[in-house]
Amino acid sequence: MDFTTYLRFLFILTGSLLLVLFVRTWVRLPSQAKVELDCSEYGSWCTFKNSVSGSSNGVFIQKGKPKPQQKVDHEKEVAKHPLDPLTVQEIKKVQKIVQQSSIFNHGKFTLHSVVLEEPPKEQVLLWKAGSSLPSRKAEIIAWANGHAYKLIVDLASGKIVDNQISHENGYPAMTMEDMTSAVKVPLKSKQFLEIIGKRGVNVSDLSCLPISLGWFGADEEGRRLIKVQCYSSAGTANFYMRPIEGLTVLVDMDSNEVLKITDKGKDIPLPKAEGTDYRLSAQKYPLLPPLNPISIEQPKGPSFKVDGHQVKWGSWEFHLKPDPRAGVIISQAAIKDPDTGKLRRVLYKGFTSELFVPYMDPSDAWYFKTYMDAGEYGFGLTAMSLDPLNDCPRNAYYMDGVMASADGAPYVRPNMVCIFERYEGDIAWRHTECPISGMEIREVRPKVTLVARMAASVANYDYIVDWEFQTDGLIRIKVGLSGILMIKGTKYENVNQIRSQDELHGTLLAQNIIGVIHDHYVTFYLDMDVDGTDNSFVQVKMAKQTVKNGQTPRKSFWKAERHVAQTEKDAQIKLSLYQPSEFHVINPSKKTKIGNPVGYKVVPGGTAASLLDHNDPPQLRGAFTNNQIWVTPYNKSEEWAGGLYVYQSKGDDTLSVWSNRNRNIEKKDIVLWYTLGFHHLPCQEDYPIMPTVSSSFDLKPTNFFESNPILRTAPNYEKDLPTCAALSE
Amino acid sequence: MDFTTYLRFLFILTGSLLLVLFVRTWVRLPSQAKVELDCSEYGSWCTFKNSVSGSSNGVFIQKGKPKPQQKVDHEKEVAKHPLDPLTVQEIKKVQKIVQQSSIFNHGKFTLHSVVLEEPPKEQVLLWKAGSSLPSRKAEIIAWANGHAYKLIVDLASGKIVDNQISHENGYPAMTMEDMTSAVKVPLKSKQFLEIIGKRGVNVSDLSCLPISLGWFGADEEGRRLIKVQCYSSAGTANFYMRPIEGLTVLVDMDSNEVLKITDKGKDIPLPKAEGTDYRLSAQKYPLLPPLNPISIEQPKGPSFKVDGHQVKWGSWEFHLKPDPRAGVIISQAAIKDPDTGKLRRVLYKGFTSELFVPYMDPSDAWYFKTYMDAGEYGFGLTAMSLDPLNDCPRNAYYMDGVMASADGAPYVRPNMVCIFERYEGDIAWRHTECPISGMEIREVRPKVTLVARMAASVANYDYIVDWEFQTDGLIRIKVGLSGILMIKGTKYENVNQIRSQDELHGTLLAQNIIGVIHDHYVTFYLDMDVDGTDNSFVQVKMAKQTVKNGQTPRKSFWKAERHVAQTEKDAQIKLSLYQPSEFHVINPSKKTKIGNPVGYKVVPGGTAASLLDHNDPPQLRGAFTNNQIWVTPYNKSEEWAGGLYVYQSKGDDTLSVWSNRNRNIEKKDIVLWYTLGFHHLPCQEDYPIMPTVSSSFDLKPTNFFESNPILRTAPNYEKDLPTCAALSE
Repeated sequence: MDFTTYLRFLFILTGSLLLVLFVRTWVRLPSQAKVELDCSEYGSWCTFKNSVSGSSNGVFIQKGKPKPQQKVDHEKEVAKHPLDPLTVQEIKKVQKIVQQSSIFNHGKFTLHSVVLEEPPKEQVLLWKAGSSLPSRKAEIIAWANGHAYKLIVDLASGKIVDNQISHENGYPAMTMEDMTSAVKVPLKSKQFLEIIGKRGVNVSDLSCLPISLGWFGADEEGRRLIKVQCYSSAGTANFYMRPIEGLTVLVDMDSNEVLKITDKGKDIPLPKAEGTDYRLSAQKYPLLPPLNPISIEQPKGPSFKVDGHQVKWGSWEFHLKPDPRAGVIISQAAIKDPDTGKLRRVLYKGFTSELFVPYMDPSDAWYFKTYMDAGEYGFGLTAMSLDPLNDCPRNAYYMDGVMASADGAPYVRPNMVCIFERYEGDIAWRHTECPISGMEIREVRPKVTLVARMAASVANYDYIVDWEFQTDGLIRIKVGLSGILMIKGTKYENVNQIRSQDELHGTLLAQNIIGVIHDHYVTFYLDMDVDGTDNSFVQVKMAKQTVKNGQTPRKSFWKAERHVAQTEKDAQIKLSLYQPSEFHVINPSKKTKIGNPVGYKVVPGGTAASLLDHNDPPQLRGAFTNNQIWVTPYNKSEEWAGGLYVYQSKGDDTLSVWSNRNRNIEKKDIVLWYTLGFHHLPCQEDYPIMPTVSSSFDLKPTNFFESNPILRTAPNYEKDLPTCAALSE
Repeated sequence: MDFTTYLRFLFILTGSLLLVLFVRTWVRLPSQAKVELDCSEYGSWCTFKNSVSGSSNGVFIQKGKPKPQQKVDHEKEVAKHPLDPLTVQEIKKVQKIVQQSSIFNHGKFTLHSVVLEEPPKEQVLLWKAGSSLPSRKAEIIAWANGHAYKLIVDLASGKIVDNQISHENGYPAMTMEDMTSAVKVPLKSKQFLEIIGKRGVNVSDLSCLPISLGWFGADEEGRRLIKVQCYSSAGTANFYMRPIEGLTVLVDMDSNEVLKITDKGKDIPLPKAEGTDYRLSAQKYPLLPPLNPISIEQPKGPSFKVDGHQVKWGSWEFHLKPDPRAGVIISQAAIKDPDTGKLRRVLYKGFTSELFVPYMDPSDAWYFKTYMDAGEYGFGLTAMSLDPLNDCPRNAYYMDGVMASADGAPYVRPNMVCIFERYEGDIAWRHTECPISGMEIREVRPKVTLVARMAASVANYDYIVDWEFQTDGLIRIKVGLSGILMIKGTKYENVNQIRSQDELHGTLLAQNIIGVIHDHYVTFYLDMDVDGTDNSFVQVKMAKQTVKNGQTPRKSFWKAERHVAQTEKDAQIKLSLYQPSEFHVINPSKKTKIGNPVGYKVVPGGTAASLLDHNDPPQLRGAFTNNQIWVTPYNKSEEWAGGLYVYQSKGDDTLSVWSNRNRNIEKKDIVLWYTLGFHHLPCQEDYPIMPTVSSSFDLKPTNFFESNPILRTAPNYEKDLPTCAALSE
């Protein structure tokens, strides 16, 4: 090329480089470590099949036709509500304050959690929109010098106003950095490399998982440990199906040392890769014939408004925020009374407090698998960006999460939560007169709900958590399980080789693959504030009555006996099909016009109870699942059912321990705890990826309203519905 | 007018009259009695808010954009499948055969049921599309000369080929004519008229209900009785809220005589009409602010095909027919295996076999209220036409019911069943890799299902029954309860007047109104044919295991113990949260490639168990609710869990009686029975009409497929979704 062309080329090249640099500086969040750690909106991590307008968090008020969602500039975002999560700027400030403080003697430290320290409940309740916010504080869980610290930072003054060194047995939840570095540690060990070599796995195909080890006695105390188990990803993205069975590497998470290698699976072959990959791109057979396109359509846009983290829909208002530990926190849910137009409080705060996932195989490589996904891994930390059109319908609004990485730098998890109106063709209420009365009446109202959703991928498993709000005041909390099973390698290739299937601790799902039996318990914290702070818990027993001879031709019936719980032990509830009850949270000082105490009831759905011994170490730690329902008096420090420091804890700071103090709970600010449960005996349909299984429970108004709150709603009319054309035609 | 004009006028008039006559003759069904009895497509009964193309039953194959549903000419309709219900012409023929036979000595008779006598199962299974149908037969339940008859009519020969006089204690289900005439009988009684006069109710405002009286001893045997209770419809369409409390009229249904009047409610005032009317037209307050229109849209039309009563959708095929007793019967549900493309049998026949609704008030006017809605009232007989856009979404297809009235004349219940594809924004399966593995994977598949729905209005209560088919092979059977409570009048106007609320037998819902405690049990007949006729029932017990000291750090776990039920008593299952099991129906002679027996499991959802004494007369009759699960060997005559003749029966022909014969059920053609249950303690939100409460259970493939059958499905893409515009803008 000639000189002019050369110059022109140089000029364009320099310009481009400058532009790239500028864009990177401008849009990139400060910590360079994030790209590999998170699904940042700017990283290649977030390759959507269906691009959306990207990160967002703004005012979302739809009038007329739907507009693309307004993008939020998280760098400029400011808190608008006392409960709004820390912003990017606030997290940066916190980072600086901690870095500059001498609190850790300027030694190495990691931040395991940086979240808003919520203002006292009284302050939040008094706050009114438009007035200034209560002072903004951050709560930090840090790890330094072999100790866990809980710090409170005042953002205005820039000071650390509280500093507690933990004396608990447990440790903070792992950081993503803990997990990603732990899985690299085995590679330092020659012995490990030898073993995987013998098993025929190349280092380049190695995928390892950081497995929390629970707590099983004094040997494992005094240091942050993790067990690393590895898989081969040769030939499949679904490495979970190719375990190097029986190989467990005990690692010190702080020194990054291999402490012990156990190999109990020498003779167990690596299962085949064939048929395990679930990605669309990996499907060799033709796809199944597709169904015609189907969509939830709202031609005039959604009926809800999102302003920052405040959501308004129909009669409902609530605050929603992503949280690194809980996933999603719902606060101040209140509903407008259709008679008075006044907003009435229902739930001050609700979230996934803890999960407990014990596996049912007592062998060396399995006995310790008794995960607590919120307090060990971070249920929000592992909640990845949702996939538009697939994780949530087309009419969804997406909210980003803003969190801090281990060095305190903020990062954005785009589309961490979605909010959408659901219409599934169901009926809110109906009545037809049949010919008996001769009246020609058919009155039917369709059912539309609002769903807030997140999906956590705690390594192999995917948990979908829905908070669904109904127009009639009901709140349904649903957990869906999908993702990939924890697989055990085996010599067996066919069930006919197995002497007794029940010694398998699971099901043979494919050649050399056992899906191991396990349970899932998901415990929810529900700070109920039914029409005010002070509430009581009433167990309404359905008590069987026997009729004395001759009084009536009936011999039996049941009546509703109301028992107001005085203390916590009165409210330790084990559900029973044969001694059923309703469970009401009432406001004893407020009655309906005709005199019933206003209330909400918790309606259990399909659930499961833990079958473990109460003295088994995992069950000591998961003792919060000993009952399906508990009620405790509100106590700021009692939010995490397994304890604040749950990692390697002994179970001495659980809901069970708190509740056994048997405090008074009548006419108090009370917190209801409910545990959803699933027993999972895997079946072949769960291989290589599991169809979603769901379970839910409800919070349902019970004499809360004077009458059916959705009586005065209109039916659907043809004239209101959209005209649609196929896009691809 | 001049003569020509006059002639022209006459000509046009005559022509018009002839046309009207012709149209009437052509489209009207023969029996004139029907217009008042049923929601005939031609009667004013069916005033839809949203007109549809009316009655329909045709081939529904959508290509390109949705077309209006093709109308079925029921007069010309012919059966295409061995299980197709009797057609209008066939019912007419049956009517003629019965009328002309001497079987009842030419005395008065009523037909309580005229349905297809299904061909033997072997014949149906052998039949292939296109080949000629097995001989068409009708099964008739008739009442004549004080006896119940079960007749089988051969349609080809026109002969009654079987004729059984019942020796059972019970009677046939009521006809709609029984019900509508019984409620008029009290008016013949002066005493009755005096009483209602004293209570301040005008005859013109009287609405009475025919209340089945169960069975409580010898006094009530030997004749068809009914108890009539009345209400005032003055000022409200919701007369159920204005009971003339305590007034019960015992009526002989055959002689139409008043046998006894009991009045135990002299001092109980009639509750107010105010606030009770639920009709849109009756709402005085402004309506609640509406949500923006929302709809399930399928611009290319549904993916299912309906040919007569055969439904094909995705991998599923099944036969669906309306039935006067069961409501809806699903037959021959089979699913295509994604690996082989072969259709595999799952369910030969499934339907709502019986309902049991005991009230929990032992007083004179209430103790006997222990309804069996299928066998006493007819769950299909009371299934009214669905309301398009409200009972079912816009993308629904409607199927009519063709039934016979008491004189044997056919009539059409338009839109008795709807079928639609549901997309509710849920997830069929998903997995995201979190940063631990460093893989950038997010694979999510949306969930679309097919729903077949009916809604029965058994007087006050509305039951919505959904059969939902999932692409992954799961069948969800869901029952929703809505409609209006059975109300008890009371003197109380405020809870503070009541000494002990638990003596109320319910909840004070408004002034003078008690919502009485009751239960609902809905028992399903499920003739499972998993990959063939001969199946076994396996209880997979989750058996707690204790670890002997030192073997492993764990102290406990559970293992799956498979117990194959040998006889019926092995399969009388009482669910327990603390001794949990899975319940599999397997085909013992067919295994997956790796050796698991192919199976389906029944997955209980939220349920309830009856608290009544097993010796209480209602529970003797409702003994089919003594267990949640039963398994019986297939027996043609065991279809109705409470007995074929359940009205006033003593409970000597129930599922419980059959099952206690303890027949062998291993490797047999077996029928699974599952009972959904609801305890209902009413609350003010249920007044004056109840928001829907639902419960469901699942039939779920369990080692039926080799692997996840929906692995090879594609996600949603923006390009496939519709563009929609608001219709009213």
